Amino acid sequence: MKALRVNGGDLAVADIERPVAGGEALVRVIRSGICNTDLEIARGYACFSGTIGHEFVGVVDEAPTERSLVGKHVVGEINAGCGHCELCTRGDPRHCANRTVLGIHGRDGAHAEYLTLPVGNLIEVPDNVSDIEAVFVEPLAAAFGITEQVAILPETRVAVIGDGKLGILCVRSLSTQADKLTVIGKHRDKLDIATKYGNVTAVMLNDVSSLARSFDVVIEASGSESGFSTALDLVKPRGKIVLKSTFHGQPRWDAARVVVDEITIVGSRCGRFAPALELLSNGDIEVKDLVNDEFSLADGVPAMKRAAETGVLKVILKCT
Amino acid sequence: MKALRVNGGDLAVADIERPVAGGEALVRVIRSGICNTDLEIARGYACFSGTIGHEFVGVVDEAPTERSLVGKHVVGEINAGCGHCELCTRGDPRHCANRTVLGIHGRDGAHAEYLTLPVGNLIEVPDNVSDIEAVFVEPLAAAFGITEQVAILPETRVAVIGDGKLGILCVRSLSTQADKLTVIGKHRDKLDIATKYGNVTAVMLNDVSSLARSFDVVIEASGSESGFSTALDLVKPRGKIVLKSTFHGQPRWDAARVVVDEITIVGSRCGRFAPALELLSNGDIEVKDLVNDEFSLADGVPAMKRAAETGVLKVILKCT
Repeated sequence: MKALRVNGGDLAVADIERPVAGGEALVRVIRSGICNTDLEIARGYACFSGTIGHEFVGVVDEAPTERSLVGKHVVGEINAGCGHCELCTRGDPRHCANRTVLGIHGRDGAHAEYLTLPVGNLIEVPDNVSDIEAVFVEPLAAAFGITEQVAILPETRVAVIGDGKLGILCVRSLSTQADKLTVIGKHRDKLDIATKYGNVTAVMLNDVSSLARSFDVVIEASGSESGFSTALDLVKPRGKIVLKSTFHGQPRWDAARVVVDEITIVGSRCGRFAPALELLSNGDIEVKDLVNDEFSLADGVPAMKRAAETGVLKVILKCT
Repeated sequence: MKALRVNGGDLAVADIERPVAGGEALVRVIRSGICNTDLEIARGYACFSGTIGHEFVGVVDEAPTERSLVGKHVVGEINAGCGHCELCTRGDPRHCANRTVLGIHGRDGAHAEYLTLPVGNLIEVPDNVSDIEAVFVEPLAAAFGITEQVAILPETRVAVIGDGKLGILCVRSLSTQADKLTVIGKHRDKLDIATKYGNVTAVMLNDVSSLARSFDVVIEASGSESGFSTALDLVKPRGKIVLKSTFHGQPRWDAARVVVDEITIVGSRCGRFAPALELLSNGDIEVKDLVNDEFSLADGVPAMKRAAETGVLKVILKCT
């Protein structure tokens, strides 16, 4: 089968053996989405070699331990725990020390014709959620997962820093909770997309000085080193900064401000899939307008180039 | 009256006018304690000029709006809010943007014969708490204030990084909550003091590698840039790091680890005085053994030098 693979510094579509279900489920991938993390991995992040990709929708081809799943449209939670440790037995393998992560760590990913995942990771897609929408479940779960960690009430003053895919998904999913949101970015065109739905105000990054210390919760989703220092400028004393984006390097930070103003910083990576699917199934949020382009899996390399272009949000691969 | 004052780079005991109560209370200072923040201010931190010092016990000399306080032994909350903003009217002036802070920001401090503070900042000292113990109420409130921000249960695995005054007060006050604590430091003699009471294990900083990712809560109270990176090594995924100490400079940090392991960082400065006084009044914790030396206020400059010596914990000034 075809698969988009990273090997050292090389990125290429290769022909490899179709994986074997073993004790897991074998899923035929219909569509996969290119994420910034894929671009980072291709640049060396996480030292991963193998098939990349972790946003997908597919059809279950084999599921020896759960035959009723065969033929169903599914999305899949990307962390596969060891199944035995304290965290796994508590039902949260997302932080299992021995976990593999689809297309990121120790497990081939979704930019391929087939993938395998434990049956427990799969979640059925309702009929009224399209394949394109379903590809967004993973990043949407990551965005909406913020609400699992930080209370967002109607009156909470929320700012999102970053007008990329992740920032826009944070804005759209959190605007189902907070009455008013502010999104801060560098790109007028992306800010226009971010403010298309809900009660959202856009502010260009250069114009934020008047907003100093005025938000209860600031989401850092810009993926840039300077994003955190902007977040620190914007958050109220005793407020919360949610760190969503990972990046290379070790940025500097004003730790004294964090102490003096008793700010809380919450690292946030994954979220639960079910609430994200529900947002899509209920029509609470729109995602299809974030797709700029679709490529066949065979054109995975030009698709990755396209995804890295300025102004591009989501690029989708048609895998089978 | 005499007062220990910082002016630019100069530290000296000066003769200045006794302050006037005005709408506040005038307090005759009996004892004051030298804090690391005083040493930092003398080195330029917070750009403060005036009388330093914020840990004290005194006797109320005048209190025009609350005459029943006159003659009472008191300690005093160091933040004086504007009284009008949202935070002040909610009863928490600790983060009022226009606050003054005793001996730190916009208000002469406690290393003096007299000080003034708003009546509402004062809290009476029970008869069974000695003057020396009462001087520890402010730093003890800061240490025990952690429990206002982070749940410390009997089963919570807690590590404290730092074997100085603040670290030891964190260890002693939190050992009234958690069944077991670990304190990590560089000084065998200070670690011995830290482990004198309660179920506390000492580990030398060089020997922490076997403790990686094993604590629910890590308190960073070392005051050193490297303390945070040690905290990040020690905390479990989804655990909490409490930042207690302020320091100059902008340290680097591994923000990606914070995101991937969904760690929460809680900046923590001040705590409520009443629970700290209660710990002392109930005999729950011992502090007198942390005093290395007492000086008269006139010898404030050598007292500050003594407080800066390696191995010295608390130095007390006899002010009147």
